[in-house]
Amino acid sequence: MRFQDVISINDFEKDDIEYVLKTAELLERELKEKGTLQYAKGKVLATLFFEPSTRTRLSFESAMHRLGGSVIGFAEASATSVKKGESLMDTIRTVENYADVIVIRHPKEGAARLAAEVAKIPVINAGDGANQHPTQTLLDLYTIKKEFGKIDGLKIALLGDLKYGRTVHSLAKALSYYNVKLYFVAPPGLEMPRHIVEEISDKVDIVETSNLESVIPEIDVLYATRIQKERFPDPAEYNKIKGSYRVDLKILEGAKETLKIMHPLPRVDEISYEVDKTRYSAYFRQVWSGVPVRMALLGIVLGVIE
Amino acid sequence: MRFQDVISINDFEKDDIEYVLKTAELLERELKEKGTLQYAKGKVLATLFFEPSTRTRLSFESAMHRLGGSVIGFAEASATSVKKGESLMDTIRTVENYADVIVIRHPKEGAARLAAEVAKIPVINAGDGANQHPTQTLLDLYTIKKEFGKIDGLKIALLGDLKYGRTVHSLAKALSYYNVKLYFVAPPGLEMPRHIVEEISDKVDIVETSNLESVIPEIDVLYATRIQKERFPDPAEYNKIKGSYRVDLKILEGAKETLKIMHPLPRVDEISYEVDKTRYSAYFRQVWSGVPVRMALLGIVLGVIE
Amino acid sequence: MRFQDVISINDFEKDDIEYVLKTAELLERELKEKGTLQYAKGKVLATLFFEPSTRTRLSFESAMHRLGGSVIGFAEASATSVKKGESLMDTIRTVENYADVIVIRHPKEGAARLAAEVAKIPVINAGDGANQHPTQTLLDLYTIKKEFGKIDGLKIALLGDLKYGRTVHSLAKALSYYNVKLYFVAPPGLEMPRHIVEEISDKVDIVETSNLESVIPEIDVLYATRIQKERFPDPAEYNKIKGSYRVDLKILEGAKETLKIMHPLPRVDEISYEVDKTRYSAYFRQVWSGVPVRMALLGIVLGVIE
Repeated sequence: MRFQDVISINDFEKDDIEYVLKTAELLERELKEKGTLQYAKGKVLATLFFEPSTRTRLSFESAMHRLGGSVIGFAEASATSVKKGESLMDTIRTVENYADVIVIRHPKEGAARLAAEVAKIPVINAGDGANQHPTQTLLDLYTIKKEFGKIDGLKIALLGDLKYGRTVHSLAKALSYYNVKLYFVAPPGLEMPRHIVEEISDKVDIVETSNLESVIPEIDVLYATRIQKERFPDPAEYNKIKGSYRVDLKILEGAKETLKIMHPLPRVDEISYEVDKTRYSAYFRQVWSGVPVRMALLGIVLGVIE
Repeated sequence: MRFQDVISINDFEKDDIEYVLKTAELLERELKEKGTLQYAKGKVLATLFFEPSTRTRLSFESAMHRLGGSVIGFAEASATSVKKGESLMDTIRTVENYADVIVIRHPKEGAARLAAEVAKIPVINAGDGANQHPTQTLLDLYTIKKEFGKIDGLKIALLGDLKYGRTVHSLAKALSYYNVKLYFVAPPGLEMPRHIVEEISDKVDIVETSNLESVIPEIDVLYATRIQKERFPDPAEYNKIKGSYRVDLKILEGAKETLKIMHPLPRVDEISYEVDKTRYSAYFRQVWSGVPVRMALLGIVLGVIE
Repeated sequence: MRFQDVISINDFEKDDIEYVLKTAELLERELKEKGTLQYAKGKVLATLFFEPSTRTRLSFESAMHRLGGSVIGFAEASATSVKKGESLMDTIRTVENYADVIVIRHPKEGAARLAAEVAKIPVINAGDGANQHPTQTLLDLYTIKKEFGKIDGLKIALLGDLKYGRTVHSLAKALSYYNVKLYFVAPPGLEMPRHIVEEISDKVDIVETSNLESVIPEIDVLYATRIQKERFPDPAEYNKIKGSYRVDLKILEGAKETLKIMHPLPRVDEISYEVDKTRYSAYFRQVWSGVPVRMALLGIVLGVIE
């Protein structure tokens, strides 16, 4: 990789992505063989979570332990010097003395970039507001690759609130590096922003629709996300459309046998629990993907894996 | 042991209990000789505390570190996806990807059982509401065995709120596997529930009384628990009886020299501080017992100790 | 060292201080050579932070990991048995069963001393209210020694709220062991307490002034601390004097080239950000000093370093 920080998926060229996915694959295999690795022995990860995200934090901490390293940090801002009026810059300049790598989650856009500019040690963005969450995108790609043995040639639908959804914006851009067909399935008013469609439309085929049922028979991957109730000015409007975007056994009747359903989690009721037991569900394997992918990223930025 | 999870003391037959106590004893000895063990090297424990319990959490975390393993987790629910509406089932299915064993504390009865049914990795119950706290019972038994070299033949009084006390319910049932005489000493209205007395009364001798003073000269173990003020509709009633259930030097005048006093802690004022320095107090050694017992349980369910 | 606990800088004679600084220096060198040390392998540190202090907590946890040890603990009191009415004494007698050394931060003066008297394992004070924070003082001395290769012969100014500032009281006393000249620079009403001035005035030269500008050309070290707005009955009074105590490029015009500025952090606006890039700023290197100094203290009280 040409950089020491992981801030935005936009910083990644296709080669970088492939390098991370390949490294994750090798680490996953080595972990399964040996039970425990020692690449990060003696190294310390600082997890600075200025807003809580248990899933992401535990995933990074697990990855660091699986690499043989240690973890310090905080899970929410309430217990920090921020309350005493300290700037983010000063917090970073302090913590860089205690650790070898920083993973930061922050409610404000751009916080991770600022942290990376200030820090002398590597910084990994674990989500900065509505902006970026690059390790989620990488684990999504890793999951697709693992499920199908490839990404090229697949038909992939992104479902839900595509207007505000950070995850689907990054994923769409990253998928545009590959030879895929994308389906953007969103309720009216929550469509994928024009600037993203335009950015990638010369690289991949795009179908935009509000009708989930119509695309189900064609697709290989259904990537579901939350349709946030609070986005709808009129609750009646929300209730009317909710059903058409809920993934349940009925809507899956027309699906290919090999369809895989993904979700960044946590889900609320976008995917019916009855789907969990079907051949389609890949969302909990997707959770597992977070560990090898984050092991790879930690190992790469720490310089302990080449 | 015939099972991979530790959910309820009711799942334990006497052989299972003896096996845990024996394993704990061996591990305690080995730890004292070697200073540090490596049975769980490379293994990760996830402590999921949906309600805080510092004592229990730190005891488990210490046990895992003493086995050479690592720990991830959270100390209270506030910082979790529960706030985003995630079900316990989904949380478990997520975390099982990050760890090799889960220790769960949850305010709702049955939560640990549900977690164990869902999880592919072992689950240990660290307390689910008013229901079960099996590792407390096991460390109580371990303490008695260590203090006296045996459990059979002892006269053991359980003191305090026996109606609502989770700890004493489990302990009474577990003690009924042994050849002991039990004294249930409770204020009127807070007696041991009938169904528990009936369940064990054909296996052990039981004395039920509200008079602590009268049993003191006979007993080998006095297991004190809190008498919760809030259980009394009339505060005057509470104040009247409080004194008769407070363990102090005066009430201990008639005790056997070898009497041992235990308490699950934290205490408020059930045991006078002056008792700490006497030969009777065993409650802080009881705290220590939590470490080898939890090391044994972690080691057994992880399959790293046979 | 003649003691097993680290409670107050007043317990340290000059030899003790020198021993800690020398040990820290050796450990820092060894850490840089080897990357990771194993002196505390198998040892467990319990960090009991009854009030949050992320900086101090992470510094201790990093130090313990750098020594090869493990960490358990809590970052704030909310999640502890204190809520259930447990005394500090009982908490300590509990936790000493889970760890090999305790680091305690507590809002009440004397709490660390009490903990040390109760505990069978070593206790290090990480701040007890307005009273003591001895590891801060030791890392301050370590920083000065590292910046100048010595402490003797230096002219050192303490700036800010010298009346209520715990840090500057301890530092002043510790510096009085050395052949230094001290400048106490405080706004009227926030001067260094008489009893401290009298205690050390026969050992070191002292200049007391409210005029920062006048001392700048003479000094080697400027140790800045917060001037707390809330100390001023009249906000207008605060605003009037604030400017004269803010360290910025302008006030530094008359400084020696070799002047070093220190600050215990977090800063609010006592030091202008423009100063960070100058040759004068030593405050982030001062943060780093916390790690070797705390490694030394942990290693010494654990008995793993001689």
